[in-house]
Amino acid sequence: MRRLPFVLVVVASAALAAEGKWTPQQVLELGPAWVKQQGFSLPLSKLWDEKKGGGLLANAVQLPGCSGSFISAEGLLITNHHCVVGILQEHSSPQQNLVKDGYLAATREAEKPAKAYRLQVPRRFVDVTTEVLAAVPPGADDLTRFAAVEAKQKALVAECEAQPGTRCTFAAFDGGLFFTLTEFTELTDVRLVYAPPEMVGNYGGETDNWSWPRHTGDFSLLRAYVDGKPFTPAYWFPVSTKGVKPGDAVAVLGYPGVSYRAWLADEMAERRELYFPSAKALSAEWIRIIQEEAARSPEAGIATSDDVRSLLNRRKNAEGQLMGLARGRLIEKQKASEEAVRTWALKRADQKPALDAYEALTALMVERRSTWARDFLLDAITWGPRALSWPVTLVRRSAESMKPDGEREPGYQQRDLARLKERLERDQKRYSPPVDVRLLESWVVRALELPASQRLAPIEATFGRYRAGDGGAGINGDGLRSQLVRLIAGSKVFDLNERLKMFDETPEQLRARRDPLLDLGLALDAERRALKDRRDRWSGATLRLRPLWRKAVLAQKGKPIAPDANSTLRVTFGKVQGYTPRDALVAGAQTTLSGMIEKHVGEGDFDAPRKVREAYEAKKFGRWIDPTLKDVPVDFLSDCDTTGGNSGSPTIDGAGRLVGVNFDRVWENVANDFGYNPVIARNVNADVRYLLWLLEEVEGAQGLLRELGAAR
Amino acid sequence: MRRLPFVLVVVASAALAAEGKWTPQQVLELGPAWVKQQGFSLPLSKLWDEKKGGGLLANAVQLPGCSGSFISAEGLLITNHHCVVGILQEHSSPQQNLVKDGYLAATREAEKPAKAYRLQVPRRFVDVTTEVLAAVPPGADDLTRFAAVEAKQKALVAECEAQPGTRCTFAAFDGGLFFTLTEFTELTDVRLVYAPPEMVGNYGGETDNWSWPRHTGDFSLLRAYVDGKPFTPAYWFPVSTKGVKPGDAVAVLGYPGVSYRAWLADEMAERRELYFPSAKALSAEWIRIIQEEAARSPEAGIATSDDVRSLLNRRKNAEGQLMGLARGRLIEKQKASEEAVRTWALKRADQKPALDAYEALTALMVERRSTWARDFLLDAITWGPRALSWPVTLVRRSAESMKPDGEREPGYQQRDLARLKERLERDQKRYSPPVDVRLLESWVVRALELPASQRLAPIEATFGRYRAGDGGAGINGDGLRSQLVRLIAGSKVFDLNERLKMFDETPEQLRARRDPLLDLGLALDAERRALKDRRDRWSGATLRLRPLWRKAVLAQKGKPIAPDANSTLRVTFGKVQGYTPRDALVAGAQTTLSGMIEKHVGEGDFDAPRKVREAYEAKKFGRWIDPTLKDVPVDFLSDCDTTGGNSGSPTIDGAGRLVGVNFDRVWENVANDFGYNPVIARNVNADVRYLLWLLEEVEGAQGLLRELGAAR
Repeated sequence: MRRLPFVLVVVASAALAAEGKWTPQQVLELGPAWVKQQGFSLPLSKLWDEKKGGGLLANAVQLPGCSGSFISAEGLLITNHHCVVGILQEHSSPQQNLVKDGYLAATREAEKPAKAYRLQVPRRFVDVTTEVLAAVPPGADDLTRFAAVEAKQKALVAECEAQPGTRCTFAAFDGGLFFTLTEFTELTDVRLVYAPPEMVGNYGGETDNWSWPRHTGDFSLLRAYVDGKPFTPAYWFPVSTKGVKPGDAVAVLGYPGVSYRAWLADEMAERRELYFPSAKALSAEWIRIIQEEAARSPEAGIATSDDVRSLLNRRKNAEGQLMGLARGRLIEKQKASEEAVRTWALKRADQKPALDAYEALTALMVERRSTWARDFLLDAITWGPRALSWPVTLVRRSAESMKPDGEREPGYQQRDLARLKERLERDQKRYSPPVDVRLLESWVVRALELPASQRLAPIEATFGRYRAGDGGAGINGDGLRSQLVRLIAGSKVFDLNERLKMFDETPEQLRARRDPLLDLGLALDAERRALKDRRDRWSGATLRLRPLWRKAVLAQKGKPIAPDANSTLRVTFGKVQGYTPRDALVAGAQTTLSGMIEKHVGEGDFDAPRKVREAYEAKKFGRWIDPTLKDVPVDFLSDCDTTGGNSGSPTIDGAGRLVGVNFDRVWENVANDFGYNPVIARNVNADVRYLLWLLEEVEGAQGLLRELGAAR
Repeated sequence: MRRLPFVLVVVASAALAAEGKWTPQQVLELGPAWVKQQGFSLPLSKLWDEKKGGGLLANAVQLPGCSGSFISAEGLLITNHHCVVGILQEHSSPQQNLVKDGYLAATREAEKPAKAYRLQVPRRFVDVTTEVLAAVPPGADDLTRFAAVEAKQKALVAECEAQPGTRCTFAAFDGGLFFTLTEFTELTDVRLVYAPPEMVGNYGGETDNWSWPRHTGDFSLLRAYVDGKPFTPAYWFPVSTKGVKPGDAVAVLGYPGVSYRAWLADEMAERRELYFPSAKALSAEWIRIIQEEAARSPEAGIATSDDVRSLLNRRKNAEGQLMGLARGRLIEKQKASEEAVRTWALKRADQKPALDAYEALTALMVERRSTWARDFLLDAITWGPRALSWPVTLVRRSAESMKPDGEREPGYQQRDLARLKERLERDQKRYSPPVDVRLLESWVVRALELPASQRLAPIEATFGRYRAGDGGAGINGDGLRSQLVRLIAGSKVFDLNERLKMFDETPEQLRARRDPLLDLGLALDAERRALKDRRDRWSGATLRLRPLWRKAVLAQKGKPIAPDANSTLRVTFGKVQGYTPRDALVAGAQTTLSGMIEKHVGEGDFDAPRKVREAYEAKKFGRWIDPTLKDVPVDFLSDCDTTGGNSGSPTIDGAGRLVGVNFDRVWENVANDFGYNPVIARNVNADVRYLLWLLEEVEGAQGLLRELGAAR
């Protein structure tokens, strides 16, 4: 791995601690003294060996939307409970509800294979900045620049994935300052070993989600196989039976998805003023629609349970982001920081390009705002009515299939098709006709309400007459609903077999069907293409501008700054500690089994499993009483710098032992994607001793304890 | 006032502190040493003068559903903001929204008179146990016993209220152990002096309701007038400008409504197993109905805003009670305490009557459970559809009007009629036709689903054919809804003028109207009468039995026990202190203005008024910075023993100065009505210094500060 260009080696300072999702290369450059200062007694070479390009830090495995890590030499893997719910659903039946009851494989043979569950073990990390920048023709305009980088990305990935059993991911850092390629061994034979009952793994449910104190055993165990034999990982974490206490050093490893700390204050303001309020309002409306229909029909309730959970999460997240942005004054702080950089740059003639880039990025934001409402609605198709999302997906897939693979849009290349088709199939059971027609109506009404300058031609053509005021029938008229019902009745996209057939058809074949929703999808796809072209141009401009600005920021700060999260491997160092969530409240760093039992009310989100309550009542605590807590520990807080994608991330102590699994952030810390606030930056970890207690005292899983080196 | 018979004078012990809503007479008997031990430096004679039957403790004034106290010699009175919302609504207009903006009378002339707001100042307390017991004929059966006590109550109240400007309340203590009559001076000229903006007085709204930390300025100032001149109270509290700090002694005075600590464990179990779960489920269903209709129509939303708030509160209360009963193991503790009393009594021949009474009370509970579901539904009429509640009220009022005043049911006597009619008039604007028909349908469906042995004859006659399974059309059939719509369309009870006419009609006149809902009301009223007869008999039995059992309990405990709350004057002594709400969380005792500003998000329940934020930003803290908090104090916790009815209660320090106004309990303490748990028993008070800061630094109300003796 080549040295990353932007890292400045400086003397580590205490202020560095906790903030920063570091790349392994940055850890190396921060150096052994810094790592020791973080409380890590392991030699740096064990964490990261530059020659091998690996080490314990590379024992963070990427799962669908989650992270995980190996904890035995025989391919045993730990992640969150909420990362394996799909596997539990897959193996559930009316007779055996694994989601509710959990599962423990008594033998290796009893481990439950997971269909279409892919696991990526990192193998090699390459800086490809030089190649990528060289691919951009001199004097290229922004759209050409973007296309050139995208083409290079595809070529690099294709070349990398030509190796058997390999998956490769390309990543841009801080909008184009540098680029990397990560090479993973892809494992497709993954089996479920242990999942606790839902009321351990998701104890507290929506009520406790994003909050603290938590009492959730959000962990599960998988095993990876290759050719029918357990996979032998290059690195694995031994499990700590001693656990942690407040003040202990920990690190969290994994694949955080996205953060925005390098954005300009103006860009953040778009989130505060437009995106989060709109996402909150639209989620709230769709939640209301789904809940009303679910109250009328149990079928609708079952079909939409995943969708409503995802909308609830989207709304709660938007609320938390808005609250955190306001409370942390994050945008104001970013503005102040930018002013400091500009003042610094104004005194330096060589910084003119940075100042120009800053102005240009700001101007770009003005352009983006001019079509904001329309663009938001076009994006919302993908998380909205299936009467729109299925057609636009089918239409796009069909259009892309006409191109050579290397020129296709990411997400529609050969490598993506199996996943895409699986999703179209799987989503059939999430489709509820009475819900979907109302979501469609809601979307169309919003499209009709767009400002005149942003209206969508296909919607105007099909539904424009229903707009009130323009001499139309009024959007609440029954006429709109009737027409939507007719459109749906006349379409075959809701028939699974037909939809899977459509998946393999050419645009001509789709057009020839004269299916009214496919036709609408074709028209909306054209709008979405035009939006993508604009965005590609904006991205090309950003690729050109942001690195200029970020170089100035890094030079002015004069200290290492971790790049924004981008689903690449990162590590964050911190300490176990509580916090002050707000005025007159102090939150301790650890929760206990007694606290879990105390929350039990026997229904809803707090219905602790009988076997857990019985073990508690019988005082079967075994070896798992924490000497200070005088109780079995359940969850703990640390000030590690995490975000979405870190679900299931291993939390390790200073000796490199697994002490917990990261699964959430506290509510006050939702907006840390925009800025790190040490006062409230806390991530929530499940204590591995809670897992060990469950395995030993509740499940009697001696075999697993032996494999973990934790048997008595 | 005669000595109350049940008080045992014992040496005060520290364990007594905090628990107990004491009567003034009990405080006297606990004695000066005990009072001093509570941290009160005032001589006992100032708190309560036995000869005068009064003292500072009598400076607790009864307001509709609330408590209050005088804080100046010129009739200035403090209570909660939420106790004067009706007055603010009365004086609001589209041009001037006093609910939202608050109000400060610049002069005495500008004080806003409150229509139909009555204020009761206690004047005399009389133990009437001997008279009441003497009124019961020897050998009376339970129904006769109850009727005799009720007749005596009415006679005593009527005799007492023969004095001009006097209101009298009768109260039974612990189910008939003793009885009192309280004589009040009734003041009807009450004027609004100051109410803060809604986003001070109800800051945090439903989100923060029943919780801590709070940042609510839940106070308001009224003035009482007599003959156009300010009322001169016999007692008033000077306001403290020094405030309180953790550990300080405080007392809360007022009229707590009802508690159940003297109930048997079996009686409490009915609440846990039947009442709270049913109240929660029914509230939830009705909330859902109202919210669905409110989403469809703004008119429905406006009309039902009070109803939905009351239902939300009912549901949240039921949830809190269930949580608290489970978490505090209150019923199990009561059972253990009963077993201790029974063991003690079994060894004493003279305690046979107590043991027999215990058995009989338990048997009564079995009888009450046999018709529980039906009785619950009959009760729910009063908080349910107006299509039922208005007819049954009109029908009952009409029937009672045929009787001599002294024989009428409480609530329908001459003294009650003005209030009753006002409510029937006021509720017109709370009536929403689309909501009401659905609440009615919900109620009827539940009635149809009653167990066969508990069905209601009038419902069977009118709607029985819609029950599924019995060969009926099915309760979800459209037929039921159509019939309900027809019933409503054929009725005149929704017409305000007609309804007020009905209020003064005889049963014959009501019958002659052939109004379908009045006819249903007549039939349901008969069921409710039958239920009342059964309940009167149960009450008669309880009057006979509970005193026998309670005497044994008091004798076995050998220490003073405060009787259950019954809307009579009580005082509770405690200390300012925080608590541990649950595992891994510590709540401090005080909140601050900074914490209030920190919660501000600019919308919903957290939209702090601009003038407050501006004063904060400008650091206009004046003299009101607490030296320890280094901030303006807002609310504080104490472990005083409060319940509903204590809203607006004065909180005084050991020198008898007003330091706050009680306004809530913490969530974990909702179930303290069933048992006091010192670990989580916390009441929430607004700090008077927050009021003084608002008056001085935000409102510039120097005149009021002078009147309060708090001017610079």
